[in-house]
Amino acid sequence: MRRKEFSIAEEQEMAEFLEEVTFGFLGLASEDGWPRVVPLNFAYGNGVFYVHGSRAGEKMKLLKKDTRVTFSAAREYALLPSYFTDDHMACPASAYFKSVTVRGHAEMVEDLEEKAEGFSLFMRKLQPEGGYDPITTEDPRYVSQLKAVALIKIVPEEWSAKFKFGQNAREPERQRVMQGLEQRGLPDDLETLRLMEKYCPYHRGTE
Amino acid sequence: MRRKEFSIAEEQEMAEFLEEVTFGFLGLASEDGWPRVVPLNFAYGNGVFYVHGSRAGEKMKLLKKDTRVTFSAAREYALLPSYFTDDHMACPASAYFKSVTVRGHAEMVEDLEEKAEGFSLFMRKLQPEGGYDPITTEDPRYVSQLKAVALIKIVPEEWSAKFKFGQNAREPERQRVMQGLEQRGLPDDLETLRLMEKYCPYHRGTE
Repeated sequence: MRRKEFSIAEEQEMAEFLEEVTFGFLGLASEDGWPRVVPLNFAYGNGVFYVHGSRAGEKMKLLKKDTRVTFSAAREYALLPSYFTDDHMACPASAYFKSVTVRGHAEMVEDLEEKAEGFSLFMRKLQPEGGYDPITTEDPRYVSQLKAVALIKIVPEEWSAKFKFGQNAREPERQRVMQGLEQRGLPDDLETLRLMEKYCPYHRGTE
Repeated sequence: MRRKEFSIAEEQEMAEFLEEVTFGFLGLASEDGWPRVVPLNFAYGNGVFYVHGSRAGEKMKLLKKDTRVTFSAAREYALLPSYFTDDHMACPASAYFKSVTVRGHAEMVEDLEEKAEGFSLFMRKLQPEGGYDPITTEDPRYVSQLKAVALIKIVPEEWSAKFKFGQNAREPERQRVMQGLEQRGLPDDLETLRLMEKYCPYHRGTE
């Protein structure tokens, strides 16, 4: 899929993907018009993205002047060598991947309650096993910390996603890719095969 | 390191990193000023980056109007849970990673010889095991293909890199992180430990 409108099932899949991927890339506008790109850990929940940083950092300076951002996260599942489908030409070499990209506005989160919730979302994602005292504004040790760091909320206005798993391949190529992945057997190849079946236009809707 | 000037040894390390990471994120300016971010496979060699795409795609349209780009690639080695260094507070939760970001101009490669070399660089990186006929302009089967795809060269004007492996941590925290990684033993943890030693300011220059 590479579209800008999504079904509820697809939204669910994007949310699951955003839970798996630990970091993404924030695109920022700058005064001179040169785009900036910054890799960052992020958390996604309730339809918004959170990233954090230093109050005095360059990100904050840029965002004060222009709140328009793009955020993109991707995971590559398999590099497909050309010989999976062609014995001679290099051209079919390709990759299967998932990517989600949103355009939106960035807001500095100033409300301490929302900050505590935002950072809690981060911790639940990146440290699901726990092992820390809950982040709340009732804990004075956290209050000063929450004030000291900057939390940015990205509110998406437009989503796009690409989950590329051979949906457009013709059946003979598809079969050769599947055989190739099976034989190669890299750690992600089995999952890639599962996703090829899942997203195959012939299988869609039957599971 | 997070600097904009690098030694030859550091340039070598960045080049090795760019050889390992298969995809990065291209930041593009757009007419309305909203930054775009696109995940892409890339190849790096002779000081320039190559990415490719469809001649009619959105990237090409944007690049025709504004050639200023930023390209960033990152790899996360370890998420550091807060309890590695603090029994109560969530705040020390962090990540160790490498990232390289360049600002520069994008040029469409039109010369067929350079296109053949650019795509050969891609293949050597992403399919080092071979298994295809060499890409050359003497092979008529490749000439038409080379004409049909767009190859973009990104010429960096400014580099920045961050290799974050606890260089600024105080010795007691450093020790706790190292113990934590050893005990956890995830696939990347051993490599992370090696990089912590390598980049430790106390060890630097001794290897």
